[in-house]
Amino acid sequence: MFLGRVVGTVVSTVKDAALIGQRLLIVQPVKPDLSATGKRLVLLDCTGAGPGELIYWCRGKESSFPFLPEQVPSDGTIVGFVDELHLERGR
Amino acid sequence: MFLGRVVGTVVSTVKDAALIGQRLLIVQPVKPDLSATGKRLVLLDCTGAGPGELIYWCRGKESSFPFLPEQVPSDGTIVGFVDELHLERGR
Amino acid sequence: MFLGRVVGTVVSTVKDAALIGQRLLIVQPVKPDLSATGKRLVLLDCTGAGPGELIYWCRGKESSFPFLPEQVPSDGTIVGFVDELHLERGR
Amino acid sequence: MFLGRVVGTVVSTVKDAALIGQRLLIVQPVKPDLSATGKRLVLLDCTGAGPGELIYWCRGKESSFPFLPEQVPSDGTIVGFVDELHLERGR
Amino acid sequence: MFLGRVVGTVVSTVKDAALIGQRLLIVQPVKPDLSATGKRLVLLDCTGAGPGELIYWCRGKESSFPFLPEQVPSDGTIVGFVDELHLERGR
Repeated sequence: MFLGRVVGTVVSTVKDAALIGQRLLIVQPVKPDLSATGKRLVLLDCTGAGPGELIYWCRGKESSFPFLPEQVPSDGTIVGFVDELHLERGR
Repeated sequence: MFLGRVVGTVVSTVKDAALIGQRLLIVQPVKPDLSATGKRLVLLDCTGAGPGELIYWCRGKESSFPFLPEQVPSDGTIVGFVDELHLERGR
Repeated sequence: MFLGRVVGTVVSTVKDAALIGQRLLIVQPVKPDLSATGKRLVLLDCTGAGPGELIYWCRGKESSFPFLPEQVPSDGTIVGFVDELHLERGR
Repeated sequence: MFLGRVVGTVVSTVKDAALIGQRLLIVQPVKPDLSATGKRLVLLDCTGAGPGELIYWCRGKESSFPFLPEQVPSDGTIVGFVDELHLERGR
Repeated sequence: MFLGRVVGTVVSTVKDAALIGQRLLIVQPVKPDLSATGKRLVLLDCTGAGPGELIYWCRGKESSFPFLPEQVPSDGTIVGFVDELHLERGR
């Protein structure tokens, strides 16, 4: 999984039927020190996340598991909120 | 999912049987500010998108979900149109 | 899917049983303007492609769909020939 | 699979139901010479690994196999500890 | 699939049960001209490959196909030996 911060939303009315009712969030991937890294993505969400929140997301087909038995064409889904990050001293 | 703009089409007559009847679109990935980013791809489409349109696409096996129960060998499919993008102020 | 040109072949006698009878082609990925881009790969083929031809290929598990019901361990398969490419003016 | 060293943990209370009870570890990918390479990731674990340990991890949907029959939305899981690494002389 | 040369081995006693009995090989990816390219990986093997040998490997979930019906958490498996490589003249 990857860390990220929600920075925006996408509005889309015409889309694959399995995506109806799904929110589309723009996420900036971040490092464990919370600095930005890499390109912004459009992710689905199964947690109720909103702009500004620190989350982690799962990519690939397994990102459609939270929506089973519906087969949602997602390749990236927010699966949890980050409460705290602990890094080893000296690492 | 990823943002992109349709910039062209591919004509292909000899192809895997599961691809017959599918349109092949050339897409330029874009950032949320709509500037180009990364390599152009050939994508399938389940939305009726055409050249010039701003879309988002899904990659990986899950990009074949819109065509179920047929098992289309797609690794990238346009799954929706972008109406609006909202970015958090200061992000 | 990705555009590429077939540039060579691999001869392999000892291999996974599901690959017996499959041709292995070396492919150079290309951009829509047909210039080379990225690393050469070894791909399977379900179209009868040969050296010099312009093709498109599919990556990931879905690249094994053309061989179903056999479960061929492919992560990249040529799925069609390119007849023509059309790019929008000014893009 | 990829080599890595566990460098931290993520605390998360609100998450997808299938992730409840799973530990989230921050891992620094390493080369066979154990130098750091690439971005840190958040991984699940099926081995009982802890901070400081040298492990290898599997990415993609197959990283959810250790949790079957539950369909855990994981795209990266620690699947074993490294006891020793042997490299060919001159390579 | 990708070309590579086996350059080492990993010894691991504590691991996911589905990996017991599997050999873990360190592989250096190579180009068709056999020069090294990209990061070394830890791969499973279904061919009996050993250090020094030129092989090709498959990545992703399909790399677990050679071990079916067991669901081995592999994201990269050596699936064949390279006997010869042929490249088009001028390419």
